[in-house]
Amino acid sequence: MTDTTELRLVDTWWRAANYLTVGQIYLLDNPLLEEPLAPEHIKPRLLGHWGTSPGLNFVYAHLNRVIVRDDRKLLYVCGPGHGGPAMVANAWLDGTYSELYPEVSRDKAGMQRLFRQFSFPGGIPSHDAPNVPGSINEGGELGYSLSHAYGAVLDNPDLVAVCVVGDGEAETGPLATSWHANKLIDAAHDGAVLPILHLNGYKIANPTILARIGEDELLDLFRGYGYDPVVVAGGFDGEDPMLVHARMAEALDASLQRIDAAQEAARSDADTSRPAWPMIILRTPKGWTGPKTVDGHAVENSWRSHQVPLSAVRENPEHLEQLEEWMRSYDPIALFGEGGEPTAELAELKPHGDARMSATPFANGGRIRSDLRLSDFRDHAVDTAGSRTVSASATRGFGRWLADIVRDNPSTFRLFGPDETVSNRLDAVFEVTKRVWAAEILPNDQDLAHTGRVTEVLSEHLLQGLLEGYLLTGRHGLLNTYEAFVHIVDSMFNQHAKWLEATSDIEWRRPISSFVYLLSSHVWRQDHNGFSHQDPGFLDVVVNKQAKLVRISLAPDANTLLAVMDQALRDVDTVQVVIAGKQEQQAWLSMEEAEEHVRQGAGVWEWAGTPGEEGRDPADLPDVVLACAGDVPTLETVAAADLIRHELPSVKVRVVNVVDLMKLQDQREHPHGFTDDRFDELFTRDRPVVFDFHGYPSLVHQLTYRRHNHDNIHVRGFQEKGTTTTPFDMAMLNDIDRYKLVLDVLEYVPGLSERYPDARASLQARRREAREYAYTQGEDHPDITGWEFSGQG
Amino acid sequence: MTDTTELRLVDTWWRAANYLTVGQIYLLDNPLLEEPLAPEHIKPRLLGHWGTSPGLNFVYAHLNRVIVRDDRKLLYVCGPGHGGPAMVANAWLDGTYSELYPEVSRDKAGMQRLFRQFSFPGGIPSHDAPNVPGSINEGGELGYSLSHAYGAVLDNPDLVAVCVVGDGEAETGPLATSWHANKLIDAAHDGAVLPILHLNGYKIANPTILARIGEDELLDLFRGYGYDPVVVAGGFDGEDPMLVHARMAEALDASLQRIDAAQEAARSDADTSRPAWPMIILRTPKGWTGPKTVDGHAVENSWRSHQVPLSAVRENPEHLEQLEEWMRSYDPIALFGEGGEPTAELAELKPHGDARMSATPFANGGRIRSDLRLSDFRDHAVDTAGSRTVSASATRGFGRWLADIVRDNPSTFRLFGPDETVSNRLDAVFEVTKRVWAAEILPNDQDLAHTGRVTEVLSEHLLQGLLEGYLLTGRHGLLNTYEAFVHIVDSMFNQHAKWLEATSDIEWRRPISSFVYLLSSHVWRQDHNGFSHQDPGFLDVVVNKQAKLVRISLAPDANTLLAVMDQALRDVDTVQVVIAGKQEQQAWLSMEEAEEHVRQGAGVWEWAGTPGEEGRDPADLPDVVLACAGDVPTLETVAAADLIRHELPSVKVRVVNVVDLMKLQDQREHPHGFTDDRFDELFTRDRPVVFDFHGYPSLVHQLTYRRHNHDNIHVRGFQEKGTTTTPFDMAMLNDIDRYKLVLDVLEYVPGLSERYPDARASLQARRREAREYAYTQGEDHPDITGWEFSGQG
Repeated sequence: MTDTTELRLVDTWWRAANYLTVGQIYLLDNPLLEEPLAPEHIKPRLLGHWGTSPGLNFVYAHLNRVIVRDDRKLLYVCGPGHGGPAMVANAWLDGTYSELYPEVSRDKAGMQRLFRQFSFPGGIPSHDAPNVPGSINEGGELGYSLSHAYGAVLDNPDLVAVCVVGDGEAETGPLATSWHANKLIDAAHDGAVLPILHLNGYKIANPTILARIGEDELLDLFRGYGYDPVVVAGGFDGEDPMLVHARMAEALDASLQRIDAAQEAARSDADTSRPAWPMIILRTPKGWTGPKTVDGHAVENSWRSHQVPLSAVRENPEHLEQLEEWMRSYDPIALFGEGGEPTAELAELKPHGDARMSATPFANGGRIRSDLRLSDFRDHAVDTAGSRTVSASATRGFGRWLADIVRDNPSTFRLFGPDETVSNRLDAVFEVTKRVWAAEILPNDQDLAHTGRVTEVLSEHLLQGLLEGYLLTGRHGLLNTYEAFVHIVDSMFNQHAKWLEATSDIEWRRPISSFVYLLSSHVWRQDHNGFSHQDPGFLDVVVNKQAKLVRISLAPDANTLLAVMDQALRDVDTVQVVIAGKQEQQAWLSMEEAEEHVRQGAGVWEWAGTPGEEGRDPADLPDVVLACAGDVPTLETVAAADLIRHELPSVKVRVVNVVDLMKLQDQREHPHGFTDDRFDELFTRDRPVVFDFHGYPSLVHQLTYRRHNHDNIHVRGFQEKGTTTTPFDMAMLNDIDRYKLVLDVLEYVPGLSERYPDARASLQARRREAREYAYTQGEDHPDITGWEFSGQG
Repeated sequence: MTDTTELRLVDTWWRAANYLTVGQIYLLDNPLLEEPLAPEHIKPRLLGHWGTSPGLNFVYAHLNRVIVRDDRKLLYVCGPGHGGPAMVANAWLDGTYSELYPEVSRDKAGMQRLFRQFSFPGGIPSHDAPNVPGSINEGGELGYSLSHAYGAVLDNPDLVAVCVVGDGEAETGPLATSWHANKLIDAAHDGAVLPILHLNGYKIANPTILARIGEDELLDLFRGYGYDPVVVAGGFDGEDPMLVHARMAEALDASLQRIDAAQEAARSDADTSRPAWPMIILRTPKGWTGPKTVDGHAVENSWRSHQVPLSAVRENPEHLEQLEEWMRSYDPIALFGEGGEPTAELAELKPHGDARMSATPFANGGRIRSDLRLSDFRDHAVDTAGSRTVSASATRGFGRWLADIVRDNPSTFRLFGPDETVSNRLDAVFEVTKRVWAAEILPNDQDLAHTGRVTEVLSEHLLQGLLEGYLLTGRHGLLNTYEAFVHIVDSMFNQHAKWLEATSDIEWRRPISSFVYLLSSHVWRQDHNGFSHQDPGFLDVVVNKQAKLVRISLAPDANTLLAVMDQALRDVDTVQVVIAGKQEQQAWLSMEEAEEHVRQGAGVWEWAGTPGEEGRDPADLPDVVLACAGDVPTLETVAAADLIRHELPSVKVRVVNVVDLMKLQDQREHPHGFTDDRFDELFTRDRPVVFDFHGYPSLVHQLTYRRHNHDNIHVRGFQEKGTTTTPFDMAMLNDIDRYKLVLDVLEYVPGLSERYPDARASLQARRREAREYAYTQGEDHPDITGWEFSGQG
């Protein structure tokens, strides 16, 4: 199958990559070891992770062999992303690194720069971060490599994503469930993932679980996950690496052939049975080829090789000597010419152009991304017929447009969600597609198919990872999920946002589609559930990221959601968080109004406030501003303004609705932020503002604390009070209801209590009645559920 | 093995529990169906989850059989916690419910109340929430049942936690990795978990993955996870439940016998091999015994039975009729006497007292909790010898005390962490214990043992779940982890906090130990890593919970950490987040000073500011307050004050250090909060405050926005700028460094720029030099790393 020459080349590449990895960790100078190593050649701070690197290099070399021979499209997803120097080393050998960073040339000077810059102040970070060509997985926070790999191969039928999963990462929950993604791909239309579980046996200071169970259990586990695993083991106790190369080459060739066969069966023979996809279990020593022992402790094949095996090279002559011996063991003279350039032998294993894993456009998705084909969302507008009383489900309307989008982008758009597409009223999509399902399908099943474009699995981690992988390889998508449980992926959101933060400074990384969340089953409408499902705090996590990267939109009604989504789905390089209810609620705005409202991001709803209020002389300000963001708070605010119209008729009310939350922030903080003048225009400089907010009140304070009128902004929002109860009772529990808002107005507008001496008691009584009605009748009072806006329309 | 009479009893219990479950979902009145069902007997809003409930009831009945027969200690961990009505029904049948809630008596009136209160405004929530006797797992957010179960059995050698895992929950990442917890328990000293994977086949609108793979794969999977699975399947197509009861009884008896045998081998024969623990795969129809079809659609054994199978009972006479038929199929007359009390037959299957799963003290851990034995932490104090220059690692000192705690509480305290106990300098614990490890141990391994009391696995989810389970069953513990990656368990923290929020209103739930996080590898010291490891946002998630439940402590040095931990480890019913560095840093405070500082929560560090500043006439205020929270910001702040002493000698500086972050909040918001007077005393009412903060600056603004001096508080903190670089460069990247702080002072103290016209340029130059030095030399400038405080001492 593989001849010795070929394996010699692989070994040469491997040694070169290992040499370059060690060089990055240790050397400031003397990159080719032209003179004996001296302390001044060594970096003062030794940082980086050696342990995983020889394994990563080993796999890379073997994959290059396959690419050169077969001209295959491979993507290397590096789970142990802290092995950054390994991935950088291979990109430099590939030539890609010097093409993208010409100052790091393929010569001695470039090699020295390559070494010096690694984990060096002002240089490059230690992980497989966005600056590393070929990376779509930083691997700093472990657990997401496999879902990224699966996301990458969706709709890329010719791509094989080879995913190295470290045995540390394999202990994480997100990774443990990602193995099941093989039931969510289609052998006919998607590419394949070849997982390589790298059992090097140790984490930072411990063995790993999977390295310490019997091989029978290990094989059972992966068979149970639906794979056909093959074990490649070797390199222990000084075993000749050439023997391990031979085993690996054979296993790799067999695995790729099995992938080919499975895909051919699915594509030519229309075989719809789920293949047992191949996977490789690679058991090699941690820190392979590094120092065997240091200071009397075993280092190779031990957790002691995790980071920097020789830690005192500058100070300890023995360590220095060991380092020199170690580096010379790779025979740098045979690997690099006198000028430092990789030898012709290495060039033989170097694929060309985009075939290089470090140069593949699949790892720089913006290069292959095309804009989404979007039909006119206005076709799905709710006709409000000039009234403010037409009822509509925001997500149902959006769902109809979403069906168009799915239809019009048959290989570049996917919808993801944890089993809630129907519950979130997006079921129109099932008129044009189905759920993807490669596991067993029974006759009575609805909307399941191998070719489905909706991915539903009860793991937010897996969904988020799949969509990230899909976006990072140049496509589009949307994740709809429970608002409370999107916290499950807080950390994945963080890492994706950090990825975007980092790429914004890297010119060669082309823009990718924004990650769009639709949070529909939100805090205020968890009628079937309770407190555990009531949490709007994701927004607080989101605003901590760099402002330019995040957008938060709170759609108050159906037409607004359409206009918001039109912006979100066209955007690049941001995270878009869209919150909109699925329940029937007033469609306040016509399509034209909604579009303008979304363009402005926030504005006065003149029709909801005191008549003529907006056109008024600026000096003649309203008595109070009722502001709102979120569909339920908006309903309560409009109802509060209506109550005021009847109960406190002399009060001049302005209603301001905020759809783009970041407008509240200063334009110096957020590119969307209002200028102070515009903010003052809407919220005044000195009138009381009662702000009814979807989330925790502190967020509005946080966003507005630099504003002139900040001390007059009184925010109502979620107070962490919840249970299974009626929707209006939830509002009352947290003081965001219409009665409470008017009570606030009575408190904050000077002189009102005197002008309307009975209002307070009357509002409190109505509020009590509303609760009593719910508590005795089991549903909200008809005055509330059937309330109709009585304003100007 | 099991006689028919016994199984008849089981079936009777099951029918009774099913009846009571349906009654809760539907009925307002007519609980015993004494008259034909009429629309007015039906709740106006039909809420709840039927689908999973018959399975939960089935298991409950079978476990009661075992308890009554064998007097076993069983804890029922209900993964599908949305099956709340099932768990409530069983607790009512057990008698526990009426003991704890006497108004819900074991008679007709009580039954009516039981039905009415469920998911009814002012009643009880729909999930297996804290109000449900016997629950330690709400199950609202899925994924944590199995880790809770494993946490519960640690150090409870006689306990078997039977954990029902839904096949929906089994798709989550946290659950997928929790199966491996069987490598982290000790058959000799811990109890056992008996997982029951309930394959009812469907989620909300979809089949589940594990129900749609071949049985061979399914069995392989669980064998691979280290279990010896047995399948109990039945109830499909109208199969007689008695046949399924027989299978289940046999499987359950066999499983418990295998647990006994494994434990006996480990306990008597000192057999240290890891047993293949039993587990049961229970495959029964979703919504078993419910309506077979509704409106022409299959409902039993379909996702359509997930919530309320008959959804229009009030309006649709056919639905009403079907409901009546369904409820009567359980034969209520034979189950309950005329007065509504469970019949004598049911009483035969009712265990007594604490043996009832609904009454077990293991599910109300406060009942068995005893205080932690704490040696005097002062024994581990750093002797500062009256200087401020002694260097110490905060966590290393705490680690020595932690070793005492582990030693002195050999069966009630455990330490958890993702492989970082040593890296976080807590390695003194390995002088008294080891890491628990039931997988293979090799001769060269260090500190691994079956009996270890340190749990390390690379899954924050699993660790958090184990510690929650351990605390909820009345014990103590601590989780140490990376600050950035604690976001991975944001949602678990949320759910645990919600649990505590809910229990605070439930009198019979006794206090449990607080959940203590030690975040040591924090944002400012990720020297080996980079941007992905730099995120202090967990604090923002934490402060969103009800203030009374959360504490955040930022220990500036070694002795303070000891005093903080002494408070945290004694506390109950809160979540304690403690942040402290592991690096060597100045021990600013003597033990006595540290204790007083922690008692106050925040205070003036007189010795760090301008001499004599504190004793000064109140009218004679400082020119500026330098405030700080967190070890690195504290170092920079003390250094900044020192710089001012030399460079701007006329400026009067007050240094305020905040250790208990919630002190910043108003005492009306947080029980720890300072009064306005105390706040003003420390921070003044009108002087500029430059606040150097460990986390995102907005959090300090959020906590202080009601304070008089808020507009003068200028906060420095993490600005989401990070990479692999030197520690001081990280500080400079985010503008929290000493030079920047003094530049802020120059900006905010009126007239200073005129008084010191050259200071600005000089500080900027020194800052530039610091960066240039790092970027050329690869390490921080010796002036910074070797900086010594020159104040009064």
